[in-house]
Amino acid sequence: MPTESEIISRVRRRARVSGRVVLGIGDDAAVIETAPDANLLACCDLMIEGVHFRLDWSTPRLLGHKALAVTLSDIAAMGGRARFAMVSIALPPATSSDFVDEMLAGILELANRYEVSIVGGDTSASPGPVFIDTSVIGECEEGRFVSRGGAKPGERIYVSGELGSSAVGLRLLQMGIRVTADTGGGTRECLLKHLSPEPRLVLGEAIGRAGIATAMIDISDGLSTDLSHILEASGCGAVIRVADLPTAGCLGSLASTDSGIDPLNLVLHGGEEYELLFTSAATPAEVSDLATSLGVTVTEIGETTAASGLHVERNGVTELLEPGGFQHLAE
Amino acid sequence: MPTESEIISRVRRRARVSGRVVLGIGDDAAVIETAPDANLLACCDLMIEGVHFRLDWSTPRLLGHKALAVTLSDIAAMGGRARFAMVSIALPPATSSDFVDEMLAGILELANRYEVSIVGGDTSASPGPVFIDTSVIGECEEGRFVSRGGAKPGERIYVSGELGSSAVGLRLLQMGIRVTADTGGGTRECLLKHLSPEPRLVLGEAIGRAGIATAMIDISDGLSTDLSHILEASGCGAVIRVADLPTAGCLGSLASTDSGIDPLNLVLHGGEEYELLFTSAATPAEVSDLATSLGVTVTEIGETTAASGLHVERNGVTELLEPGGFQHLAE
Repeated sequence: MPTESEIISRVRRRARVSGRVVLGIGDDAAVIETAPDANLLACCDLMIEGVHFRLDWSTPRLLGHKALAVTLSDIAAMGGRARFAMVSIALPPATSSDFVDEMLAGILELANRYEVSIVGGDTSASPGPVFIDTSVIGECEEGRFVSRGGAKPGERIYVSGELGSSAVGLRLLQMGIRVTADTGGGTRECLLKHLSPEPRLVLGEAIGRAGIATAMIDISDGLSTDLSHILEASGCGAVIRVADLPTAGCLGSLASTDSGIDPLNLVLHGGEEYELLFTSAATPAEVSDLATSLGVTVTEIGETTAASGLHVERNGVTELLEPGGFQHLAE
Repeated sequence: MPTESEIISRVRRRARVSGRVVLGIGDDAAVIETAPDANLLACCDLMIEGVHFRLDWSTPRLLGHKALAVTLSDIAAMGGRARFAMVSIALPPATSSDFVDEMLAGILELANRYEVSIVGGDTSASPGPVFIDTSVIGECEEGRFVSRGGAKPGERIYVSGELGSSAVGLRLLQMGIRVTADTGGGTRECLLKHLSPEPRLVLGEAIGRAGIATAMIDISDGLSTDLSHILEASGCGAVIRVADLPTAGCLGSLASTDSGIDPLNLVLHGGEEYELLFTSAATPAEVSDLATSLGVTVTEIGETTAASGLHVERNGVTELLEPGGFQHLAE
């Protein structure tokens, strides 16, 4: 394992840092210029070997990417722009220098792409598993954040992208399937959705700026659970239409070859999708224009109701849906 | 181990939260109102069982206190005011609810005392050791932060409090001595300095506001190492006078009973003191007036020099001092 000062100098060499970072990595704390009339957004996420990932399932580069991606996704879900990040990493003493380099490369490539400045962090030996904790500071115009609690009855519910592939990816990994040079098609797509999710930062920020969402969350625990979080915080209910759910293309082909895969179950309850789920009182045209302008698929999947509870409508029948909490590997 | 939502509700119930926290724990990210004309300060610190602490040496309450204290100390060392904190905790599944409550109590008692709002965090099961990462966001007036790099030759060097007791505390713990109802006097003082350091937030903020320091750091790695950080960042050297070093009172009594304890070595190289070390071009009266007004002891211990290197003056002889890096338990 490289020393902390070696790790710091590697990060410094490769990180793109905004002009608003007055003092970056290397002092007691980073110093950042505040923006006028902004709200700060702050969040953090832990990823632990054996709980959230396994080293033999991924590569250090994908791991670094995912550790930062899941926290950036939280900023997206607030309608904000991610600006600054800190990364705390604990690694077993025998960790190779290459492993550290690759993990940093995964973190930095993602941070640089979204102009997120890495401003600090900490490193330590770990007497146990690999631990990564990422903290992100974002911003939005004052009052323009999108919480979970603003939905009202009669609004439309939207989700970005397609659902179910991350849960399939996890399933495939558990079955022993890995990303190799030969892995192609739907299998590759599902594995990478799980191992290397892309945070919806551009969409999230645009939704916040446009003021088009009344409530928003990212899907980390599964559509049913995360929509329930919105409904609880907002004090309303919802009906979602099974026929309208955007099912990832790879699910169909895999479901036909593996009878254990139930596409609808995965779409409704599969976690770690990192798609954005939001409610909106805007017209469907406003939402689709925004999505089209960004080249992102956004699908209307139902509406909020005055009656409480989460319901699904399927073949003309409406039933109560219990949230099916997504479980990480060992939680 | 309590669930994440149980932990969240316990924190929410007991945390004092500033009016600037628009949205606290429980959404995707916290929302904070920015202060006009301020610089943000951001830092984080990892504490890992077996590396930074042992469960049989401390109590969960002291552990929670220390995990936040070390990060608050970094904000103090920037001359800033700590405002907001996030805490990521990973615990073995068998961890008792009481352990979690006590650890949170230690964190919250310290946060509430300094009006630091806990605005977020993450929890997870740990398949290995206890892992705590605290992130703190602080503030100072624009441009009023104190980095490590501003010292110039011919300035006075000061340190707060007394030195050496944390290292003695660590030594006593390694020898099997614990804090019990019967532990008194110097032994208790040294053990608690190590297990429950008090961040110098009031002094640090006052130094920043008064613009009285040219460079500052907190002593986490030891006086010799941390002063060397200032000298490297500032591009100058220093002489410190052994006769002027503020040696913790408990060192003398323990040194006389344990021949293995060399007080000077501990004062020069002992880590985890979390005292503030700073350089100043102000008059000694200005510094002592500030310290007196806060009821804090601040001692002049030497001065910066144009000649590079860290030197000590002892009995009229000046010698080069090699930084003696403080080692955590297992790093």
